[in-house]
Amino acid sequence: MSTKYVYRFNEGQADMKKLLGGKGANLAEMTNIGLPVPPGFTVTTEACINFYDAGKQFPAGLKEQVAEKISLLEETTGKKLGDAQNPLLLSVRSGAVVSMPGMMDTVLNLGLNDDTIKGLIASTGNPRFAYDCYRRFLQMFAGVVKDIENYKFELVLEKQKTAKNVQDDHQLTAEDWQVVVEQFKNIIAKETGQPFPQDPREQLSQAMDAVFNSWNNQRAIVYRKVHKIPDDLGTAINVQAMVFGNMGDDCATGVAFTRDPSTGEKKLYGEYLVNAQGEDVVAGTRTPQPIAKLAQNMPELHRQFAEICVLLEKHYRDIQDVEFTIERGKLWMLQTRNGKRTVQAAIKIALDMWKEELISKEEAITRIEPGQLDHLLHRRIDPDVSLEVIAKGLPASPGSGYGEVVFEADLAEKIAAADRKVILVRMETTPDDIHGMVAAQGILTSRGGMTSHAAVVARGMGTPCVCGCEEIKIDYENKLFKAGTQTVRAGDVISIDGGTGQVILGEVPMIDPEMSAEFLELLVLTDQIRTMEVRANADTPEDATKSREFGAQGIGLTRTEHMFMAPERLPVVQRMILAESIAERKAALNQLLPMQQNDFYGILKAMQGLPVCIRLLDPPLHEFLPSVEDLLVEITTLKLTGGNAAEIQDKEGLLRKARALSEYNPMLGHRGCRLGVSYPEIYAMQTKAIFQATAQLVQEGYNIIPEVEIPLVIDAQELALLKKQVIQVAEQVKQQTGTDFHYTVGTMIEMPRAALLAGEIAEQAEFFSFGTNDLTQTTFGFSRDDAEGKFLHHYLEKKILTDNPFMVLDRSGVGKLMQMAVEQGRQVRPDLLIGICGEHGGEPSSIEFCQLLGLDYVSCSPYRVPIARLAAAQAKLKTEHKHLADSRTA
Amino acid sequence: MSTKYVYRFNEGQADMKKLLGGKGANLAEMTNIGLPVPPGFTVTTEACINFYDAGKQFPAGLKEQVAEKISLLEETTGKKLGDAQNPLLLSVRSGAVVSMPGMMDTVLNLGLNDDTIKGLIASTGNPRFAYDCYRRFLQMFAGVVKDIENYKFELVLEKQKTAKNVQDDHQLTAEDWQVVVEQFKNIIAKETGQPFPQDPREQLSQAMDAVFNSWNNQRAIVYRKVHKIPDDLGTAINVQAMVFGNMGDDCATGVAFTRDPSTGEKKLYGEYLVNAQGEDVVAGTRTPQPIAKLAQNMPELHRQFAEICVLLEKHYRDIQDVEFTIERGKLWMLQTRNGKRTVQAAIKIALDMWKEELISKEEAITRIEPGQLDHLLHRRIDPDVSLEVIAKGLPASPGSGYGEVVFEADLAEKIAAADRKVILVRMETTPDDIHGMVAAQGILTSRGGMTSHAAVVARGMGTPCVCGCEEIKIDYENKLFKAGTQTVRAGDVISIDGGTGQVILGEVPMIDPEMSAEFLELLVLTDQIRTMEVRANADTPEDATKSREFGAQGIGLTRTEHMFMAPERLPVVQRMILAESIAERKAALNQLLPMQQNDFYGILKAMQGLPVCIRLLDPPLHEFLPSVEDLLVEITTLKLTGGNAAEIQDKEGLLRKARALSEYNPMLGHRGCRLGVSYPEIYAMQTKAIFQATAQLVQEGYNIIPEVEIPLVIDAQELALLKKQVIQVAEQVKQQTGTDFHYTVGTMIEMPRAALLAGEIAEQAEFFSFGTNDLTQTTFGFSRDDAEGKFLHHYLEKKILTDNPFMVLDRSGVGKLMQMAVEQGRQVRPDLLIGICGEHGGEPSSIEFCQLLGLDYVSCSPYRVPIARLAAAQAKLKTEHKHLADSRTA
Repeated sequence: MSTKYVYRFNEGQADMKKLLGGKGANLAEMTNIGLPVPPGFTVTTEACINFYDAGKQFPAGLKEQVAEKISLLEETTGKKLGDAQNPLLLSVRSGAVVSMPGMMDTVLNLGLNDDTIKGLIASTGNPRFAYDCYRRFLQMFAGVVKDIENYKFELVLEKQKTAKNVQDDHQLTAEDWQVVVEQFKNIIAKETGQPFPQDPREQLSQAMDAVFNSWNNQRAIVYRKVHKIPDDLGTAINVQAMVFGNMGDDCATGVAFTRDPSTGEKKLYGEYLVNAQGEDVVAGTRTPQPIAKLAQNMPELHRQFAEICVLLEKHYRDIQDVEFTIERGKLWMLQTRNGKRTVQAAIKIALDMWKEELISKEEAITRIEPGQLDHLLHRRIDPDVSLEVIAKGLPASPGSGYGEVVFEADLAEKIAAADRKVILVRMETTPDDIHGMVAAQGILTSRGGMTSHAAVVARGMGTPCVCGCEEIKIDYENKLFKAGTQTVRAGDVISIDGGTGQVILGEVPMIDPEMSAEFLELLVLTDQIRTMEVRANADTPEDATKSREFGAQGIGLTRTEHMFMAPERLPVVQRMILAESIAERKAALNQLLPMQQNDFYGILKAMQGLPVCIRLLDPPLHEFLPSVEDLLVEITTLKLTGGNAAEIQDKEGLLRKARALSEYNPMLGHRGCRLGVSYPEIYAMQTKAIFQATAQLVQEGYNIIPEVEIPLVIDAQELALLKKQVIQVAEQVKQQTGTDFHYTVGTMIEMPRAALLAGEIAEQAEFFSFGTNDLTQTTFGFSRDDAEGKFLHHYLEKKILTDNPFMVLDRSGVGKLMQMAVEQGRQVRPDLLIGICGEHGGEPSSIEFCQLLGLDYVSCSPYRVPIARLAAAQAKLKTEHKHLADSRTA
Repeated sequence: MSTKYVYRFNEGQADMKKLLGGKGANLAEMTNIGLPVPPGFTVTTEACINFYDAGKQFPAGLKEQVAEKISLLEETTGKKLGDAQNPLLLSVRSGAVVSMPGMMDTVLNLGLNDDTIKGLIASTGNPRFAYDCYRRFLQMFAGVVKDIENYKFELVLEKQKTAKNVQDDHQLTAEDWQVVVEQFKNIIAKETGQPFPQDPREQLSQAMDAVFNSWNNQRAIVYRKVHKIPDDLGTAINVQAMVFGNMGDDCATGVAFTRDPSTGEKKLYGEYLVNAQGEDVVAGTRTPQPIAKLAQNMPELHRQFAEICVLLEKHYRDIQDVEFTIERGKLWMLQTRNGKRTVQAAIKIALDMWKEELISKEEAITRIEPGQLDHLLHRRIDPDVSLEVIAKGLPASPGSGYGEVVFEADLAEKIAAADRKVILVRMETTPDDIHGMVAAQGILTSRGGMTSHAAVVARGMGTPCVCGCEEIKIDYENKLFKAGTQTVRAGDVISIDGGTGQVILGEVPMIDPEMSAEFLELLVLTDQIRTMEVRANADTPEDATKSREFGAQGIGLTRTEHMFMAPERLPVVQRMILAESIAERKAALNQLLPMQQNDFYGILKAMQGLPVCIRLLDPPLHEFLPSVEDLLVEITTLKLTGGNAAEIQDKEGLLRKARALSEYNPMLGHRGCRLGVSYPEIYAMQTKAIFQATAQLVQEGYNIIPEVEIPLVIDAQELALLKKQVIQVAEQVKQQTGTDFHYTVGTMIEMPRAALLAGEIAEQAEFFSFGTNDLTQTTFGFSRDDAEGKFLHHYLEKKILTDNPFMVLDRSGVGKLMQMAVEQGRQVRPDLLIGICGEHGGEPSSIEFCQLLGLDYVSCSPYRVPIARLAAAQAKLKTEHKHLADSRTA
């Protein structure tokens, strides 16, 4: 028996997404639960995959199976494809496994030709409608199947309107449309060298071919890259009997969400147009009515629709994004899917559905994409500042952004690549603009509603967006837009607030985020579930305080080098580096001691009662000196311009030292605890500063828990040597201050050798903290500074790597070392405290892996603490029955 | 029962070295096999260790045990310590576990005082001898125990000689010596504030204390560092009844080797002095007689001595280095130990002893230290060049060296640290000069024989040495020496040939080494035993040919970047790098193709019949461009001097590119197969060049075995992608040339991730080659370029690491990754070929580890191939019953 490539809607169900695509599976599901779905069938993704495997040939048996299902459809509808009396008309739509809105192609009204148009006229009694359908079909077919540019058709339309001296499409008569239809057919014949195919079966075959081909159009490829969708899934095709929202004023078409996708509020939210086809709503060319209006215009239909929405939510247990059409007073459901939503909405909906007992607490928590919380935690426009608001549009995707005004996607991409911020301003966006949208800080459109392309895509990416901002008049030609009396030119800086719809001149002042009540409620829920602690990386008392507010349970990493960089300290630090003797170095260090002690006092006090892990000096010393390059240019200039001899000599002395300290590979150089080995007096000073601050606070009555962290360790002997000094200093400080205090000594695991020898190292270390930034650099042999600019993108493009390993923890390589370290470390010291403080500590997939490894905590930047709390809870839920071994191939 | 700290000689044996030290154990062994050894006892190393543990206090019970053994000694000898009639005199000598010649302290004639001197006069009837002994004792005791500078005593001696108007010590009378003795005692009293201790038991106690303390004197510490002897072994003390070689002309003392330690010839080799104490021979202050003379002077004693030497060789199954004394016609053996020897001698002795059936073939092979072969394989002075020989001395340690003349050890060390070559020139060397000797390219002394300090130490270190070169007159004050009419000043360059004793003005031309018949015989033996193959790293046909001569069984690494560096190619390579388009780059590559093909043709032809592993381009491209620094200075100069605008623009363009390519950490940057991923056309060209050369040679009838090696792989996908291209190119070349050939594709394992994912990678790779240089850099996070200059020495000094991991493979960290890679790789592909091509491939300890890992081959530089052959054979023998797990803690 040959493969089954075609499923009627009643043969499928919701869990067959991989085979039927998301749209097809949901059409089947709706059909099966008895909703009014126009009959039809789905051609599987397998057919698409085989189509590509065979060099873009339909697989054997497909045509026959389609023909058979068409016959069944003819039986069901009582209409016949190509029948001049009662023609069956079809919609042909792509439907991928993962939704890719607007990325692929659709052909409506398929089946019309010079014969069947008569039947349509006869059966509807509406020749104007019939010809309008025919011209729409021709236009779509030409665009999608024949790849003919749309403006050629628009030109004909414009000419006809001018000839008839009318402004608007719907003022054209049936006869006008008939004229247009003839001209459209001529364009197709002329452009393709062949007449428009009158045979509906040929039309269908070509349309199917076009849908399969659309899987690999440029837009779709970019979209998949951005959203990390595999390239080999293929798309399904949904062939469905047409229903018409454009037969007259008892017709309508619309899209709606079962709850508000911006706020999460529990009420129908959407838009519809009377006497229109679906494409009119999505394209944003006519501004639609809010769904609430339907209750006034068609109360019974509104009731039916609302009931169906409730049913769908109960059935899918999530907010639904639906499309519907009303044909002469009858409601048809054309699509349902889980609705995209803002993160605020996601939180509210998850909490509400939990309270409605639609979903469990655990499920509620897994509903929020942790990365999205980022938007809530970012700075936003200061509400107390008076802004120069020049226009207001629809608040389509929350968050604020500013940047140079750019009118083209290509240019937006280019400018952003030069590290400049961009606001992309368009009348409306299309899938062709996707690369510019990705690159922009914000998107502003003058047309289209909350469900327009710009709005949907921006929400998906979390980019701020103001759309339908009709107050701005865009002039592409002169690269400017006007808003009232203001003229804003390309390159001028504007800000937008996607939460309010405001467009503001210049860069506006921002304030720190506050967390909503729902957000806090969610975080409390996550704390009930997660087993890993969440700490923050913080170098100042202010960051430490912020971390506590965000719920950090300690500091996982306090870097001490930033403290060395302060302008008033740098000269002392340089004196310490340039010292010719230990005595000279110690003198400089003695000057630094009270400063460092003060730093630690502030942080430890802010975190009292919670552990604070302080890393001793890590970067190579040359980072504190002027660069060799700058000195070279200065010296050459001085010499050639007859500069002062003494000055030249000074600079040359500095150059010698800078050269002596400069390194071929600083990442692998004289840094971390290697400094502590070579210059024990530096670490001694820092340790003393920590313990004196601790003693002071203990005397003041605080509970202080310092953890002294030795970075870059590669051997147990090395740690033993340095630990010995820490203990000596601690004993001294205890004696001198007459104060007892508790502390621990541990190490970063950030070099492969430390992971490989973790057992021995654990004999010395009371805690491990994975420095996965450096561990990734050394395990891959990728210098992050070089890789990200020079070759990593090739590795991602060529799919050698699926993720940037500096963003998402590499489970196979780096993860294997971590696993070895955890196992060996815990074997030697069962109560070994283990955490992670690399950037991965705030990234959800990496947090999941840490959960699998059994780490005690993750540590991340203060603003990512809430994300980590949620991700840790999700990780706990996701990994409950998972083991490390499985995870790596996941 | 308290610990036994003291062993009489008849209580010990040879295998108790760890407890009794080398000297003590051998004195015991000789006693037990019935040789004439003066009676005595040994204080154990354990006593020394406990002495240090207790803060330099004798452990409890030691004094009592010593007293008890002294009583027994008094019984045996019939003499009594401190007895005014028949006093027992003692020698007190250190004796470490590992021989450290001359490094520690000795006190002879202990027991003399103002009373016992009378007994010594009475029992010998020789007051001059007795007073000489007393003054020697005082002088040594003062130096060793009281740390008084020797010149103070020498001054007294000189004054006495002047007063008596004599030239030489032995012209002084008993009365003279008595005067000297009194003055010596005064010096001691004055310097220490206390009178010289008359009580022999107090003398012994202080001497033992001094010997223990000498374990940690500066010389001993340096010696242990150079020879990698652990610091915690401690030293034993040998207390022995004195015998005297200086009682008259029927007395003598000498040292000898049972075979010639320079050539290995089977004949007694050594020196003796009539009427002298042992120190006179070793110190080189009097020039001694060759041992053959003894046969004439004292034929019976010579016969006895020769017999004992044969017996000792049979007993110890190795060449012996013995000390003896003849006291009034009776032969006493004072010491025996395995003799240090040159590598030529070591080879000859091992082969001879094997033929004499004294040792097995396997044992013969383990007798040669592979590292020593290096001397035989290095360049030596061209014998066909006429040299300006200015002097000739004793050929004390073979090999040739040249460098600036330096007269002080400190300065020698300082100059050598600045990478300048030094010849250390001294009248004689002492243990205080050890650091200068280590730093020098060669050592030249004007005094002392083949067993003088300079000679022994130089042979041990493998440093060329000419000693006893009496033709040169050294003037330390004016920093010059004269040789005939020549005056050579500090800083002038001379050469020495330690094989002939020649001293030559200037730097002399050198020639390549040839291998002696014995050397070749040894290598053939090793080949019968070893199981690992030995390959060479070679980049040119010349190196390839040399490798074959040295017995390489293939090329383990051909680097292709050196070929890019040739002056006529560099402009083309730069054009390739600066290309703005792929077409431009391909044009440059097309120019390089025939050049590369020619390179490979030569190497493959030279190695026909053997495998040749060719690594595709590895270094980052900026290595082929001028440096950013140079360009900056040039541009600044041009601008300030009104340079040509076009030229400035050109340079600025080059600077932009150099900057764009420059990297923060080139070691972890855009290099290795990352270039192949980014610029597939570069690897395609190189692969084409390899295969076209192969096809050409196959057509010419050669058996060619190319291995294409992809460097720096971190992922199986990456290798798969690049391998695919190699296969495509191979197929093209096969088609175009109509020639079939065989090849394999494999990878370097040089990044931790490659080792961690070796199983997956082995699915793609037909061979692995460990690039342990880079694997060491990334596993430790040590940039070799930076570490060796900046901090690695701290790690060695502080004993965090026992070896430089770039010289000796780190078994615990890097080795663990290698083990994982071998195990995973072989599991996936049981016939996976695995080798090593890092510098460790020629280092014996690392080769042993490779044997344990089960590698198929090691690859090293051509000149190290014979060393690797020997080391591989030894590794096979050493590891036969050893497992990886044991090795790591070894």
